[in-house]
Amino acid sequence: MRAVVFDQSLAFRDDYPEPVPGAGQALVRVTLAGICRTDLEIVKGYMGFNGVLGHEFIGTVAGVDDRWTGRRVAGEINAACGTCPACRQGLGRHCPNRSVLGILGRDGCLADYCLLPEANLLAVPEGVSDEKAVFVEPLSAACAILEQVAMANAEKVVVIGDGKLGILCAWVMATTGATVTLVGHHRAKLDLARWRQIKTQTGEDPAPERADLVIEATGSHQGLAAAIRLCRPRGKIVLKTTVATPFTIDLAPVVINEITVVGSRCGRFEDGLKLLADYPDLPLERLVTACYPIEAALQAFDHAARPAALKVLMRMDR
Amino acid sequence: MRAVVFDQSLAFRDDYPEPVPGAGQALVRVTLAGICRTDLEIVKGYMGFNGVLGHEFIGTVAGVDDRWTGRRVAGEINAACGTCPACRQGLGRHCPNRSVLGILGRDGCLADYCLLPEANLLAVPEGVSDEKAVFVEPLSAACAILEQVAMANAEKVVVIGDGKLGILCAWVMATTGATVTLVGHHRAKLDLARWRQIKTQTGEDPAPERADLVIEATGSHQGLAAAIRLCRPRGKIVLKTTVATPFTIDLAPVVINEITVVGSRCGRFEDGLKLLADYPDLPLERLVTACYPIEAALQAFDHAARPAALKVLMRMDR
Repeated sequence: MRAVVFDQSLAFRDDYPEPVPGAGQALVRVTLAGICRTDLEIVKGYMGFNGVLGHEFIGTVAGVDDRWTGRRVAGEINAACGTCPACRQGLGRHCPNRSVLGILGRDGCLADYCLLPEANLLAVPEGVSDEKAVFVEPLSAACAILEQVAMANAEKVVVIGDGKLGILCAWVMATTGATVTLVGHHRAKLDLARWRQIKTQTGEDPAPERADLVIEATGSHQGLAAAIRLCRPRGKIVLKTTVATPFTIDLAPVVINEITVVGSRCGRFEDGLKLLADYPDLPLERLVTACYPIEAALQAFDHAARPAALKVLMRMDR
Repeated sequence: MRAVVFDQSLAFRDDYPEPVPGAGQALVRVTLAGICRTDLEIVKGYMGFNGVLGHEFIGTVAGVDDRWTGRRVAGEINAACGTCPACRQGLGRHCPNRSVLGILGRDGCLADYCLLPEANLLAVPEGVSDEKAVFVEPLSAACAILEQVAMANAEKVVVIGDGKLGILCAWVMATTGATVTLVGHHRAKLDLARWRQIKTQTGEDPAPERADLVIEATGSHQGLAAAIRLCRPRGKIVLKTTVATPFTIDLAPVVINEITVVGSRCGRFEDGLKLLADYPDLPLERLVTACYPIEAALQAFDHAARPAALKVLMRMDR
């Protein structure tokens, strides 16, 4: 089959062995897939992963039991053991024995086919297009904020970072009725982030009033310090950026102002799919910078790495 | 009056002007006072404070209205404006216009008399001795954890740091029914921390199982990294240590394991006083390393700064 493979270097291959589903595993024929920042990091050596890249996809189930075959699906990317303490608490995303699609111990979805446990499949609602549904993984990561933080005392929300994740977080926050300000560096990205009541501003504008809730999605180690400056005493910061190396920071204001910092990584796909169904006007198409056929994988990865790029998709048309 | 004054250097004075209460202010005759780590930091230049030191005290109201005169009191140390947004939310401890007894813009309690707004006074319950009640400020700081963190999902608690605050936090946690392990460096301090079901261990012992809640009270910039290692995915860390300078830390596990870090500084005095009344067996007397007359202030501060010292008190007997 065709596949985008990382093994010391990135390559498109048309002879990669097709995966064979074992018991409880579903074979998914991929329709559309996205390139994520994590994929770009893996190509630089992050996670020490080798194999088929990709974890954002929409596809059709090609083989498993009758319940799923032929259905259009998204798939939760963490394949958990189901028996450890984390799994028993419903936190398979934190299972220490898990494999992760295209990230850890499991071939990914930038290919004609991928495998996932049947338990990981989620049907995509009828009215949601592939082009929107392919955002379910990062959109669910944004929805995780609603699962982790009580919004009752969060009237003023500031999101910092105008990349894909920052914009998705701003959109999710805008569904709560909170006053949302998105702070970024790129006027063009801020403009396309405008939806509902969202206000936008650059770092050069006067700092907004201190917020009840600050979402840090800058992708930079400087993001947390900026979030601390923007958070009111006893306010909350959701920390989305994973910085791979230690960095220097002044955390005294976190203690003095009794700020809560909530680390947040990924969310429940059912929440993301529900949001897509509930908000058909969510302008996800604005985030699509380009769409390439799988054969043009190297160009697609180059494009995704450009500073102005948002989401680069890959289509598996045969 | 007699007073312990810091003005570039620490001095005992017997000619300090007695404070004169204005409207709404109470004149408190101090009976017993404690030296806190913050006092030792101020003597090294922290906060740029000059004036009478001290913020931990028990005293008798010498002058205000009839309701308070002659009563034995503790006093909330933050004197807030009462009108700003923080004050209107009941968070006078975060009022940007506040003065703080012996720390910021207000003479402290290591003296014959001190002044506090009448609104800051709290009557000490009958059955609680001065020697216990004088711990109300740090004990309330430990109680703040119960105000900030829901204990429902915190069955396993680890407290790191065997100083006064760490021990007080372990004791407060032990009142919740949680399994509490106190991790420290000093066998003698760990031994005197034993109360109720608290287990103790040193850093050389095998690390305890990852906890639902980790209280960081080490006083060191290395405490947070240790707390992160000891916290389960989706667990919570209460950060008590204020590190005055920036430091280098790896925060990736906070995001990857979706840990919540709650900055925690000070608590409601009513909570501390209630705990003292509810738990008469709380062995606070074990924390008293020494008690000096106010005239021996310099010796008392020297003693408080020794690594083996816990609480050093000063008595204002006339």
